[in-house]
Amino acid sequence: MLFHVTMNVRIPHDADPRHIEALKAQEKARCADLMAAGVWRHIWRVAGQYKNRSIFDVPDNAALHEILMGLPLFPFMEIEVEALCRHPSSIRDDDS
Amino acid sequence: MLFHVTMNVRIPHDADPRHIEALKAQEKARCADLMAAGVWRHIWRVAGQYKNRSIFDVPDNAALHEILMGLPLFPFMEIEVEALCRHPSSIRDDDS
Amino acid sequence: MLFHVTMNVRIPHDADPRHIEALKAQEKARCADLMAAGVWRHIWRVAGQYKNRSIFDVPDNAALHEILMGLPLFPFMEIEVEALCRHPSSIRDDDS
Amino acid sequence: MLFHVTMNVRIPHDADPRHIEALKAQEKARCADLMAAGVWRHIWRVAGQYKNRSIFDVPDNAALHEILMGLPLFPFMEIEVEALCRHPSSIRDDDS
Amino acid sequence: MLFHVTMNVRIPHDADPRHIEALKAQEKARCADLMAAGVWRHIWRVAGQYKNRSIFDVPDNAALHEILMGLPLFPFMEIEVEALCRHPSSIRDDDS
Amino acid sequence: MLFHVTMNVRIPHDADPRHIEALKAQEKARCADLMAAGVWRHIWRVAGQYKNRSIFDVPDNAALHEILMGLPLFPFMEIEVEALCRHPSSIRDDDS
Amino acid sequence: MLFHVTMNVRIPHDADPRHIEALKAQEKARCADLMAAGVWRHIWRVAGQYKNRSIFDVPDNAALHEILMGLPLFPFMEIEVEALCRHPSSIRDDDS
Amino acid sequence: MLFHVTMNVRIPHDADPRHIEALKAQEKARCADLMAAGVWRHIWRVAGQYKNRSIFDVPDNAALHEILMGLPLFPFMEIEVEALCRHPSSIRDDDS
Amino acid sequence: MLFHVTMNVRIPHDADPRHIEALKAQEKARCADLMAAGVWRHIWRVAGQYKNRSIFDVPDNAALHEILMGLPLFPFMEIEVEALCRHPSSIRDDDS
Amino acid sequence: MLFHVTMNVRIPHDADPRHIEALKAQEKARCADLMAAGVWRHIWRVAGQYKNRSIFDVPDNAALHEILMGLPLFPFMEIEVEALCRHPSSIRDDDS
Repeated sequence: MLFHVTMNVRIPHDADPRHIEALKAQEKARCADLMAAGVWRHIWRVAGQYKNRSIFDVPDNAALHEILMGLPLFPFMEIEVEALCRHPSSIRDDDS
Repeated sequence: MLFHVTMNVRIPHDADPRHIEALKAQEKARCADLMAAGVWRHIWRVAGQYKNRSIFDVPDNAALHEILMGLPLFPFMEIEVEALCRHPSSIRDDDS
Repeated sequence: MLFHVTMNVRIPHDADPRHIEALKAQEKARCADLMAAGVWRHIWRVAGQYKNRSIFDVPDNAALHEILMGLPLFPFMEIEVEALCRHPSSIRDDDS
Repeated sequence: MLFHVTMNVRIPHDADPRHIEALKAQEKARCADLMAAGVWRHIWRVAGQYKNRSIFDVPDNAALHEILMGLPLFPFMEIEVEALCRHPSSIRDDDS
Repeated sequence: MLFHVTMNVRIPHDADPRHIEALKAQEKARCADLMAAGVWRHIWRVAGQYKNRSIFDVPDNAALHEILMGLPLFPFMEIEVEALCRHPSSIRDDDS
Repeated sequence: MLFHVTMNVRIPHDADPRHIEALKAQEKARCADLMAAGVWRHIWRVAGQYKNRSIFDVPDNAALHEILMGLPLFPFMEIEVEALCRHPSSIRDDDS
Repeated sequence: MLFHVTMNVRIPHDADPRHIEALKAQEKARCADLMAAGVWRHIWRVAGQYKNRSIFDVPDNAALHEILMGLPLFPFMEIEVEALCRHPSSIRDDDS
Repeated sequence: MLFHVTMNVRIPHDADPRHIEALKAQEKARCADLMAAGVWRHIWRVAGQYKNRSIFDVPDNAALHEILMGLPLFPFMEIEVEALCRHPSSIRDDDS
Repeated sequence: MLFHVTMNVRIPHDADPRHIEALKAQEKARCADLMAAGVWRHIWRVAGQYKNRSIFDVPDNAALHEILMGLPLFPFMEIEVEALCRHPSSIRDDDS
Repeated sequence: MLFHVTMNVRIPHDADPRHIEALKAQEKARCADLMAAGVWRHIWRVAGQYKNRSIFDVPDNAALHEILMGLPLFPFMEIEVEALCRHPSSIRDDDS
């Protein structure tokens, strides 16, 4: 089941840079794992902002919540979630 | 080059139903053509709303504009466009 | 799987009253059926507004979308959908 | 009498983690007590956010206010309150 | 129990003037009755706008909803409702 | 002359608790004085929030400004002011 | 006593042009009278919009309300009102 | 003197198409004249929307206002105006 | 040339009081100078807020920018600027 | 390909002034280089605010993103990006 997730990352100016760098590295690794597992299906960077648009494929809402709450950068993220479903005009088999 | 496009469709209550149905049919056909051409790469329906989230792959802004202005339902759409680029965490080759 | 759905109903002033009354009756019947089926789990009226807060229990996003798009009053509704999951503090078995 | 309450929790980045963990534990216990008493009737987590949607059953506004102001995490919450009443379409006896 | 109610009246330009005048007369009469009954406790006009701020004293949410939905001008009103309770600083006996 | 004043109090998390408690006590005393003088005519607490809705009766704008700027908690308040006047539907003599 | 009043004029596309022209002429005459009387102290046009920023000098809120509600174009105006008072930095005698 | 002007064009669905086409032609001609005169210095189309971002070079606010109010499509435009000045980082002579 | 300028002053709670007092004194002196020079034509305090509405008379945008950026309290201000021009209804010679 | 970029700079009050001054100097130098290269085509200051409106000419979205993320003041900027294309009314050859 697909969800459209927007993540706006806001790092406080006075945050410890090394702590943040470590979190970013963990985030990148975590994302790679989830993408490899087909869960984090798409991730794109919005040009000019520390923001991404992502598509998640999860069994249900609870799974999505666990994944997002578990992201290393979660405490610094404003997250919006939208439930998606297959569009009647889509001709792709893999868009649902 | 990828763009994230949000289309909110608002059909006026007093619009001529047959005209609208005709536009919807043209829209669906147009979308299928563009998807087949790899231009309209993804389209998902937002659950509970007459709204979609789409990803377009176009050579440049002008091409995107022509395509969107040319959509049969364009006059009834509120459209938001965001320029996307490859995310450093993405492991997919086909997400840029 | 639970969804929090907000429905704001806006009937245009110049709508045909009989058509609207008919839609309202169909809406009420449809709601009763869905509640009986355990799909429309809760519906409450927001005091002072033609707006409700509802909880839906559906197998997935697509099912939710079909139900909402199929509501007789859908064309006159502004709908917001939020994916819910069980709260770690909840002691109720039937809140997920 | 039912109220729809939305709680958005925003913990400052520089808050003392142990103090926050203690508050969270107290919050969980308090919630369980109120749910057992039938006051905090429903609580759901909004997927992807530190936010919940709740339904309270209280004798009056003042009782609701005392309960919410008394929540351990109250100082870190943005709270919205809506007065609810029974929806004419509801077929449930226990939704008012 | 007190509620703070804001009513913004928006009469469409093409509404039938006589129908609206009739509704306004009914609204005024209804308001007077409710004030006499101590239900509509206060009503003030916001300077420069077709908007009022009101305080209602009602037994519960459902009573408030019935009253507001029953107002002759309800179809032309945007209404906001806030649950009030006695303020710890108030020295008035009749402000709760 | 009446004014509708909304006060949203936002105390920073790292404020000195004793200083704030002192300010709150001064605020309560100041409010009582102003209510006794008939200036702060009404004050109600909005359920679930550190926010009040108040009605002030003052000779003019300048007097209102001096009073509000002089409130001990003023530095922590977001204040909205609306000029009120007697509503044509009011049957109360003391609502203007 | 001074008030800052913002008037945004929105004339519906299908309004009768002659009726609107007549209202505009009456509005201009009314404004001139009020300016001559020192009530409508200042009026400026916001460049590029059918919007003005005005300063009114009136004895009280009710007077302001009567004047604004009485303006010929009132039904087509979105009006915002702010109570003003003399600024401690002003060196002008005539700015209060 | 430079101004940043945003024009959002909203043509009502029930507008007379021929009238609108005539206005669009006049608008295009007017724009060309103003650009030739160096007044309408830049105009760009925002991709996907009936909206433009423009830079005007005018002697003063009044001149700008006359030009914008005189545009054939003005009645169908939402216009935002910002006063610009030379940026200290600019190395272009012709950007002020 | 006239500009409508709104200044919302937000002093951080942890700012050094003496530094702020010094800035306020400089601001007041600067304002007096500019008013004496006829540049800062009007300044009014918005009742109940640390906010003013001002009218500036300047030769051009750049002059306005220099003045505003040079205000001692500029770093603590949210400023909105609107270009004004003479209103066709104004009967005052000195309102442009 | 052109992009309309808005940059709102928000420097925290407690930032180290020397560090900020250094960043500003680097920003100015970087801007000059990019303007010389024809990438940062236009930059204007919005009067009264620490905000600029800019036009970038870049080969694609990714290039734009790299440039903006690489700006020394990026961490203190709120950035909005809009894809532009040639306007059908433009008579300038160099506006696309």
